Amino acid sequence: MKRIAVLTSGGDAPGMNAAVRAVVRRGIACDMEVYGVYHGYAGLLDGQLALMNAGSVGDIIQRGGTILYTSRCDEFRTDAGQQKAIEQLKANEIEGLVVIGGDGSFRGAHKLTEKGFPTIGIPGTIDNDIPGTEMTLGFDTAVNTVIEAIDKIRDTATSHERTYVVEVMGRHRGDIALWAGLSGGAESILIPEIEHEMDEVIQRLMDGHRRGKKHSIIIVSEGVCSASVIGDQIKEATGFDTRVTVLGHVQRGGSPSAYDRMLGSRFGARAVDLLQKGEAGRMVGIQQNRIVAVTFDDVFNGVLKTDNEMYELSKSLSI
Amino acid sequence: MKRIAVLTSGGDAPGMNAAVRAVVRRGIACDMEVYGVYHGYAGLLDGQLALMNAGSVGDIIQRGGTILYTSRCDEFRTDAGQQKAIEQLKANEIEGLVVIGGDGSFRGAHKLTEKGFPTIGIPGTIDNDIPGTEMTLGFDTAVNTVIEAIDKIRDTATSHERTYVVEVMGRHRGDIALWAGLSGGAESILIPEIEHEMDEVIQRLMDGHRRGKKHSIIIVSEGVCSASVIGDQIKEATGFDTRVTVLGHVQRGGSPSAYDRMLGSRFGARAVDLLQKGEAGRMVGIQQNRIVAVTFDDVFNGVLKTDNEMYELSKSLSI
Amino acid sequence: MKRIAVLTSGGDAPGMNAAVRAVVRRGIACDMEVYGVYHGYAGLLDGQLALMNAGSVGDIIQRGGTILYTSRCDEFRTDAGQQKAIEQLKANEIEGLVVIGGDGSFRGAHKLTEKGFPTIGIPGTIDNDIPGTEMTLGFDTAVNTVIEAIDKIRDTATSHERTYVVEVMGRHRGDIALWAGLSGGAESILIPEIEHEMDEVIQRLMDGHRRGKKHSIIIVSEGVCSASVIGDQIKEATGFDTRVTVLGHVQRGGSPSAYDRMLGSRFGARAVDLLQKGEAGRMVGIQQNRIVAVTFDDVFNGVLKTDNEMYELSKSLSI
Amino acid sequence: MKRIAVLTSGGDAPGMNAAVRAVVRRGIACDMEVYGVYHGYAGLLDGQLALMNAGSVGDIIQRGGTILYTSRCDEFRTDAGQQKAIEQLKANEIEGLVVIGGDGSFRGAHKLTEKGFPTIGIPGTIDNDIPGTEMTLGFDTAVNTVIEAIDKIRDTATSHERTYVVEVMGRHRGDIALWAGLSGGAESILIPEIEHEMDEVIQRLMDGHRRGKKHSIIIVSEGVCSASVIGDQIKEATGFDTRVTVLGHVQRGGSPSAYDRMLGSRFGARAVDLLQKGEAGRMVGIQQNRIVAVTFDDVFNGVLKTDNEMYELSKSLSI
Repeated sequence: MKRIAVLTSGGDAPGMNAAVRAVVRRGIACDMEVYGVYHGYAGLLDGQLALMNAGSVGDIIQRGGTILYTSRCDEFRTDAGQQKAIEQLKANEIEGLVVIGGDGSFRGAHKLTEKGFPTIGIPGTIDNDIPGTEMTLGFDTAVNTVIEAIDKIRDTATSHERTYVVEVMGRHRGDIALWAGLSGGAESILIPEIEHEMDEVIQRLMDGHRRGKKHSIIIVSEGVCSASVIGDQIKEATGFDTRVTVLGHVQRGGSPSAYDRMLGSRFGARAVDLLQKGEAGRMVGIQQNRIVAVTFDDVFNGVLKTDNEMYELSKSLSI
Repeated sequence: MKRIAVLTSGGDAPGMNAAVRAVVRRGIACDMEVYGVYHGYAGLLDGQLALMNAGSVGDIIQRGGTILYTSRCDEFRTDAGQQKAIEQLKANEIEGLVVIGGDGSFRGAHKLTEKGFPTIGIPGTIDNDIPGTEMTLGFDTAVNTVIEAIDKIRDTATSHERTYVVEVMGRHRGDIALWAGLSGGAESILIPEIEHEMDEVIQRLMDGHRRGKKHSIIIVSEGVCSASVIGDQIKEATGFDTRVTVLGHVQRGGSPSAYDRMLGSRFGARAVDLLQKGEAGRMVGIQQNRIVAVTFDDVFNGVLKTDNEMYELSKSLSI
Repeated sequence: MKRIAVLTSGGDAPGMNAAVRAVVRRGIACDMEVYGVYHGYAGLLDGQLALMNAGSVGDIIQRGGTILYTSRCDEFRTDAGQQKAIEQLKANEIEGLVVIGGDGSFRGAHKLTEKGFPTIGIPGTIDNDIPGTEMTLGFDTAVNTVIEAIDKIRDTATSHERTYVVEVMGRHRGDIALWAGLSGGAESILIPEIEHEMDEVIQRLMDGHRRGKKHSIIIVSEGVCSASVIGDQIKEATGFDTRVTVLGHVQRGGSPSAYDRMLGSRFGARAVDLLQKGEAGRMVGIQQNRIVAVTFDDVFNGVLKTDNEMYELSKSLSI
Repeated sequence: MKRIAVLTSGGDAPGMNAAVRAVVRRGIACDMEVYGVYHGYAGLLDGQLALMNAGSVGDIIQRGGTILYTSRCDEFRTDAGQQKAIEQLKANEIEGLVVIGGDGSFRGAHKLTEKGFPTIGIPGTIDNDIPGTEMTLGFDTAVNTVIEAIDKIRDTATSHERTYVVEVMGRHRGDIALWAGLSGGAESILIPEIEHEMDEVIQRLMDGHRRGKKHSIIIVSEGVCSASVIGDQIKEATGFDTRVTVLGHVQRGGSPSAYDRMLGSRFGARAVDLLQKGEAGRMVGIQQNRIVAVTFDDVFNGVLKTDNEMYELSKSLSI
């Protein structure tokens, strides 16, 4: 393979730039030419490609977001759109494509591969919601961003002896809530995968209060319900001074953590190696601390497991 | 004066601990005994006082919130409550009181002084909304917290080429919005003191877009209106992909900045010196980079000036 | 087991407090009484123990260092010292001990177990230099601290187009250098495990310079040699404006990362469970992303593997 | 004035980019063309100039270092060098120059103005060592960087009950040490402006130790002497476990604080306004919280005052 391209698609995630850098530089090290596609699939359809060199990706490993920009693209979901994408790639004599994004982005990549164009996926999303990898690129940074916010909120919660309900990202997957809640010392963690008993949440709050706890923090995944609903229920049941904070889009940004820079680098390099070896139609991932490649089919058919041990641990430690 | 007390009241602010530390240690250096009052005026009425030594305030200068806790107290607003407070203080042979808090807290302190008990106020609030001082304790940290959030949001705003509306604290005062907006490079800043023209905001957005701006950030003080209202107006007028984030209570917490640790230290030391010299009924403040003392009357009758120069500057720089 | 104790020993590491919290709270959840031993083995010999409750470890998960303090203790290395330690423990009716520390601390724990007193080790050190676990507690935080410093140095390196040599911790183990170097985008990484060719380092620098690199950063483990030696060699060979920075003890401190808070929590809980089940004489660890228990013998006889793949990756990406 | 240029010179400082952005955008708002000069005076002599537009300085307000690069230049110190610089400027029809840098950089600017070419200086240096301004651009960020490092060192100092000697920047000026020492809660602060008595430093350490202090931190300006000399003296006199850390070049970098972004913006805008009004040969500064303009002569003949009040305050608070 002599010429490949890389794009970022879907929601941005910290570490995407590290992955782009790795694709470009490993490609160059393998005597390839590497093109950057701007604005995801939409840009691919428009032919927004540029040849990159080692310097194009200099000084970006520490930057949040993605220098290639990202977008969502309806046209690409159609057969005609995918055909047009392949034509654009072939017109530029590009032989392989690395797609950095989430589940939806991989469905598009899968279609290209089915149509004969080799693609590799890199799981880049803060939600940690992709089967086939134990960690997605951006998740570690997002969790650290959330615990920094919790640490700040704890200052004011303690000073006022208040209860705070903090809503974090995660529509179908509670990993941000679970990790940030456990490492932020939250009293209760509400995630979409496990049904919660509001009575138990309130009982824990009242037990803590009786033992002299100066503050309480409840973490809620956006997929469970609005934090303000939980806040109202708590206020009504306990009478405690209760406040609600929705962390929002700060969770997506920021300079990536060491882990995410490392993971992006390893993912990007492996993606190039896979294209080189002709093993397309796969997503790179990390399992048991090793970089692996899983077929897109295994990704789409895979089932995410909830870490019950961690959930139980958080309960036993937040007494 | 041989025995004084210190309390924190109202909303907590980063740097309050630095001020408490300074009151305690300067008091000790002046051969005083210094008592900490827990939970603000409410705790004062309940007699929640404890003698503090140099070690009681060790290792707290870097901590957010207040180790003395804070609260709001309705009883203290009554004449009977104030009388009871003075009795508590006298029962403990305390001769002067330092109150760290905002405008409302000073009204209580003022009443005590009117009733013959010497008090000094230290302006501790993130809102920078107290006449008589150019900076309140906690404001610098809050602005830095906001720009860190804006820096993170900018990553994702750029990657998606989106418009973000960010709501920050400030019910009657737009200083957090103004400083953070100017130093965060916001396209428009909406504050309660200056009426905004939505047409102009939208025109600026569209001009920026035409010049190729990759993202736009609008900062709104909570006192103007809900950020989501502004977001909807922008979306409707421009069709741009627009998102809203309400920063919330993270703005109150966090380790204080160097400036706030310094300011708290200087305020606290000066408060003790004023009590020592018998100059009660005053608030310490900073004017033209010098620590000053202003009477409570001047605080209550003072008028906050809006920094129009800064407002205009932000406009001319965010093209 | 009805009564256990926990101590921290050797160099402090971020996350130790999370582990102490987990030992105490899991212990309480298992109906145990948990004692904290202050000042490591030295304090154990002096009988510096205190019963802890859930509140004793409240609000510490986010704190760097160790609330139990730590120390090095020569007396404990002797047979008499170890005997005395056991007597102190038995005098307090303590039946099991959790030791959080490094290799040297575990040798002491191992002796106690050999003498019949059950102990469990938790690997707490920033150096990631303990066989039997893929990650030590504190390592992730230290790497993040180092890359934040590198990010700052890069600003000034770029502005002046300079070469910087940065010395990081790691006497016998280069993992901090390797991870931070790779995730910080360093041009060359010098670690004790792999002999470096100074000619190659210089060649890479000059190649980068020729390609237009605005700055270069070389990371050196303290175990290789002093950074100033490397700096002098580079200056002489290239004539480049070269500066040296020794990061020093900032690498030990700071609020632990989410990963380290999580790891400390999991390690602490597992340590209690092992004591509960009567499986003493072991260190908890993480292997292939799962918490495991390995015998002290396996720790002492284990061999650390250098991650050559990561080393090679860093070379191919820093062109 | 229709065409101006801006350059950065000497050591880089956080906030320089905010100042460059302000010069460019205010210039554009005043219907000027603004050129960026790369690599300071050296680049000026080589004709390294480029026309900048509003977008050229987009997304830089939050970046450390300087996008224009900086350098030191011997040739420019000569009469011939200065003549050549003026010729380069005139050849590009540039009528005014803004120089962002320190004292040495202003001497060059002053020479240009004496030779008839209008210049304005902006004080950009972390050392806060320029007469005529109470704060230099970059100082606030540097102090915050230092206290973050002290906060980290305090964790490990407390855990081990050690004494730390921390060396910070400041060859002739102790402001970084003074501010960071006061806001970091240091036990003693040694600065070049005030002779220290080693006996007193040691006495304070021993007094603190007797009162039960868990750690001690001594801050030393590099201009006083090497921190290791102080460390050795302390070790010998007290026998305390004493460690030394030299913070080094991390102090120069990092994303600028809100204050420095604001100050850079205000300085930059004022610099353009002064050129516009024909008031050259001046440095902008901040005095009593107001932006002012002082003649270069007043800068060169000015005397820096040491803030003895702050020095005494730090002593009375660090008991």
